[in-house]
Amino acid sequence: MTEPLYELAHLGHAELLTPVYDQSLAFLIEVYGLTLVTESGGSAYLRGWGDHDLTTLKLTSADHAGLGHVGWRAVSPQALERRVAALQERGVAGDWIDGDVGHGKAYTFRVPSGQRMEIYYESEKYQAPAGQQSYLPNQPQTSVGRGVGAARIDHINVLAHDVVSVRGFMSETLGFKLREHLVPPGQDEAGAWMSLMNKAHDLAITREPTTTAGRLHHLAYAVENREDVLRAADVFCELGASIEFGPAKHSRTQGFFLYVLEPGGNRIEVFSGGIHIFAPDWEPVLWTTEGQGRSTAWGLDVPVTFHSHATPVVP
Amino acid sequence: MTEPLYELAHLGHAELLTPVYDQSLAFLIEVYGLTLVTESGGSAYLRGWGDHDLTTLKLTSADHAGLGHVGWRAVSPQALERRVAALQERGVAGDWIDGDVGHGKAYTFRVPSGQRMEIYYESEKYQAPAGQQSYLPNQPQTSVGRGVGAARIDHINVLAHDVVSVRGFMSETLGFKLREHLVPPGQDEAGAWMSLMNKAHDLAITREPTTTAGRLHHLAYAVENREDVLRAADVFCELGASIEFGPAKHSRTQGFFLYVLEPGGNRIEVFSGGIHIFAPDWEPVLWTTEGQGRSTAWGLDVPVTFHSHATPVVP
Amino acid sequence: MTEPLYELAHLGHAELLTPVYDQSLAFLIEVYGLTLVTESGGSAYLRGWGDHDLTTLKLTSADHAGLGHVGWRAVSPQALERRVAALQERGVAGDWIDGDVGHGKAYTFRVPSGQRMEIYYESEKYQAPAGQQSYLPNQPQTSVGRGVGAARIDHINVLAHDVVSVRGFMSETLGFKLREHLVPPGQDEAGAWMSLMNKAHDLAITREPTTTAGRLHHLAYAVENREDVLRAADVFCELGASIEFGPAKHSRTQGFFLYVLEPGGNRIEVFSGGIHIFAPDWEPVLWTTEGQGRSTAWGLDVPVTFHSHATPVVP
Amino acid sequence: MTEPLYELAHLGHAELLTPVYDQSLAFLIEVYGLTLVTESGGSAYLRGWGDHDLTTLKLTSADHAGLGHVGWRAVSPQALERRVAALQERGVAGDWIDGDVGHGKAYTFRVPSGQRMEIYYESEKYQAPAGQQSYLPNQPQTSVGRGVGAARIDHINVLAHDVVSVRGFMSETLGFKLREHLVPPGQDEAGAWMSLMNKAHDLAITREPTTTAGRLHHLAYAVENREDVLRAADVFCELGASIEFGPAKHSRTQGFFLYVLEPGGNRIEVFSGGIHIFAPDWEPVLWTTEGQGRSTAWGLDVPVTFHSHATPVVP
Repeated sequence: MTEPLYELAHLGHAELLTPVYDQSLAFLIEVYGLTLVTESGGSAYLRGWGDHDLTTLKLTSADHAGLGHVGWRAVSPQALERRVAALQERGVAGDWIDGDVGHGKAYTFRVPSGQRMEIYYESEKYQAPAGQQSYLPNQPQTSVGRGVGAARIDHINVLAHDVVSVRGFMSETLGFKLREHLVPPGQDEAGAWMSLMNKAHDLAITREPTTTAGRLHHLAYAVENREDVLRAADVFCELGASIEFGPAKHSRTQGFFLYVLEPGGNRIEVFSGGIHIFAPDWEPVLWTTEGQGRSTAWGLDVPVTFHSHATPVVP
Repeated sequence: MTEPLYELAHLGHAELLTPVYDQSLAFLIEVYGLTLVTESGGSAYLRGWGDHDLTTLKLTSADHAGLGHVGWRAVSPQALERRVAALQERGVAGDWIDGDVGHGKAYTFRVPSGQRMEIYYESEKYQAPAGQQSYLPNQPQTSVGRGVGAARIDHINVLAHDVVSVRGFMSETLGFKLREHLVPPGQDEAGAWMSLMNKAHDLAITREPTTTAGRLHHLAYAVENREDVLRAADVFCELGASIEFGPAKHSRTQGFFLYVLEPGGNRIEVFSGGIHIFAPDWEPVLWTTEGQGRSTAWGLDVPVTFHSHATPVVP
Repeated sequence: MTEPLYELAHLGHAELLTPVYDQSLAFLIEVYGLTLVTESGGSAYLRGWGDHDLTTLKLTSADHAGLGHVGWRAVSPQALERRVAALQERGVAGDWIDGDVGHGKAYTFRVPSGQRMEIYYESEKYQAPAGQQSYLPNQPQTSVGRGVGAARIDHINVLAHDVVSVRGFMSETLGFKLREHLVPPGQDEAGAWMSLMNKAHDLAITREPTTTAGRLHHLAYAVENREDVLRAADVFCELGASIEFGPAKHSRTQGFFLYVLEPGGNRIEVFSGGIHIFAPDWEPVLWTTEGQGRSTAWGLDVPVTFHSHATPVVP
Repeated sequence: MTEPLYELAHLGHAELLTPVYDQSLAFLIEVYGLTLVTESGGSAYLRGWGDHDLTTLKLTSADHAGLGHVGWRAVSPQALERRVAALQERGVAGDWIDGDVGHGKAYTFRVPSGQRMEIYYESEKYQAPAGQQSYLPNQPQTSVGRGVGAARIDHINVLAHDVVSVRGFMSETLGFKLREHLVPPGQDEAGAWMSLMNKAHDLAITREPTTTAGRLHHLAYAVENREDVLRAADVFCELGASIEFGPAKHSRTQGFFLYVLEPGGNRIEVFSGGIHIFAPDWEPVLWTTEGQGRSTAWGLDVPVTFHSHATPVVP
């Protein structure tokens, strides 16, 4: 038996591209509830109030929306070296970069589905300034009630033409574990949900319906409970953001969800809950149908845009 | 830098001793909401509806209440061997046993504070019979609304005369990570909260105020959210169980809690939430005071019995 | 200024007709969570655990599904007499009946949209038997966690060809107050939401799309909070009941809702929350559109069946 | 049988006195989450975001904390006249005043326990300015997430030496209905909970332990659900407000509560839920003991200050 790998610790950050930087930034701060850490080099660095790292979202001005890159934190410098070696053994071309706001040197590469990812170990912890320190020392800062109050980065969903191949790559080189997958009868695998340790998913890979590579389906931040998601629905409506899908319960992961598009067009989720995975020999759950009300747990139909829209938008 | 160990996966099960077996069993089933898997050899084997393993609680008739043993599941057969080697290197006397209902061979030993623990890898997954299969294949069975509906085993709290020494032992031999600890001014360490992967704690070690060794403070099962804990408070009262402490919010772990004593005298918790720990270099949070409302997050006083009562009861 | 009438106290009970009596009864008890009080004369009398009256739902075997009648309780014997006089003055043909399980003499009549209604004052309070008495004397019995645990009767929605006329009748003869109404541009009034005292609605009247008179749109029982509605969604799915609509938030009333059809075909709601109406001069809220995401608060589309299906089913 | 009176509609507003006006005002706005409507004549007029009236709280600078007055809104001008007549018939000395910010002419008088109260009919509805209008027209304005987000005025608790006498007065002259009362064995009545229509209570009268008359025990605003109360506990702690009592569940009313003192010393509650009272012949629930965990539903002890502290503070 091959031992499970525990070499990556968590989703560290994501970079979103936007053609309307000012509006996207305002949305992420005022509506989604993130906090601006700093702006530098045409990018804004943001964080959720419950994030222990300095920054978990980089917003970069670009000519179209989409995913800049995804950063995964290794559990140790040694684990980082081992993962880079595994990538190189597999013939993945990559480069070391010196780092960015919030983290040290990183190995950057493209996954087979075209998204740029990086792995790194050195990360800067957030130190709350006076006035923002929580009365509970095990919390990185006071909670933020602004907008929907997105608390901490949770997971990312990318698109791939060949889901099986990409999830195999993520598993073999980086230690992602397959938790659930969807294979509709007579079709190729339509989705794979993977995680690193105890979460339902840190990474989802779903099928790309177009010929474009490297697209982002959505980025999710978590809130503490389902009531926070319901409250988020009200807040989005009050602040003029249009809800695409939810609140409802996912069938895969069982998370409680709500999706909106930020002004740049990237899909953003407010997520809560999800099953906990403790078994080291978890057997991937095979879903064989989208029908019979099981695309979502309670039978809510998935809107067409949820399958068709991703960023960048295909012309 | 030493790399973090990810060799144990989760709290697998606990064995509670009770002098009133029938009453304890009825309470665990009807009030706490567990399900009886089987009875064998003077013990009952129970499970929460959300547990993926066959059984997570063994209830054994004895002349006094207390902790029979605690079982931890390793992430692989190799990890099991490595942990046994580490224990033996440290001179811990232990024995291999053939297994029990729900798990295979296990290495059993006493921790320095006197509790018996065991580690094992082979574990039997629960297979829901027809009629109890959930409509969601990623859930081990239909949810159970009986009593408070305790869903899955979460953590255990044992007492130790020398908290620092015992937590060091758990860390060095088994890979438990210190997440938070309490050192009141001028006193020895009063408590340590440790976890294996992403949870706030799988194991708490708090100071034993008597000369007895090997005592249990409490065993906790989790429910999905805080509303479930509030509902549990009503259910306990309606069913005649007396609440010792809660519902309220812990300062350490930030979990939402509720404690009762089962008829045998063992303390049982209904727990929800808790911080998530993703940083592989998490710096243990040092709490230096019990005062100023921070024994609990919102200032609720801790009842005297919470510090004095444990099982077995000291004569 | 005409003074507001406070002559009716609350929705007392409803009678549902079903062509599959045994299945409807089993559903109402095991899935919806009501309790059977007694069976008599081909009808079952049921109650929610939070109902203070002996019975709030009468289920009667019939050759088709539909509404038997609706019972409203007057605030006093004198108010009952005054309301009967008002009905008679208006030329409404009615009859006094001796009463039924749970209530005394009642005046029965048909409203202009064809539904049979009755008003009465004498009502039997529920007395919980030993073992079902709550630990809280201000609660009629212990809470019931069976199925979705529907707690108390809340409101009823009937169909009418001429909404304005029927709501005028209910207002002028019985003192129902118009709280909200929907008039889509260029159309007749499509819905009216009316209440007696502080609730968002005790009665909804929506437009009948067919030529049939006297149809029922849905009957609702309330649960305490939104988490209970979310939990109900899981329970319905686990027990094989198909969700028609929800959970989501209504725009009118702001209640949090979930609809299913009981086996006989009658639509049943699990409802929670809703705005509170305290102003004695509440100005009816005029909604002029169903579009732009406001049929439901967060934009969820209304399923076609919600507009087309009612009982009896039009052949 | 005497018919129940429905002559008063709701608690309209309360006036709190404070010796530290600026701090009290800042607390009510930034921490409690109320909104300032205007300041005039040494008083601030505030409102909860869910209040339909222009203002529900008047804060007045004074040399000590306490209750300025309580205002109750009548259901009609005629009901107002009838209640004034009833008061005058009973020999209660009162005066007509011209009105205040938010309401028209009012009849002001002292109840037997010494608090000043007034009744009125004309009330100004709140009209949200552009930018604060909710997307839901049945809501007076956008929700406010600032601080604990107190939503709407709910009830007031005053102290009386002779509870029975004062509740009789409130019932006979103004139509308050007794819902629950507490008579500990061998003692005088210790508390009475009264309401006007469907709420568990609009007014609580509890026993004054000192010789002072006219004191305020607490004023409560409601939030939508129990999660909001739990969230409020975190917010109070983060903002440095010390929690006196709760979150927990009341036995009387079953409301979910949380108490703090505002900087002036007046006790403020965040309240959610509570039983619904629909029966026009509701039989007052008699509580005969404070013991056995029933001062609060789940057994939480009542802090000494909750019985001893009221405003003004007795020197």
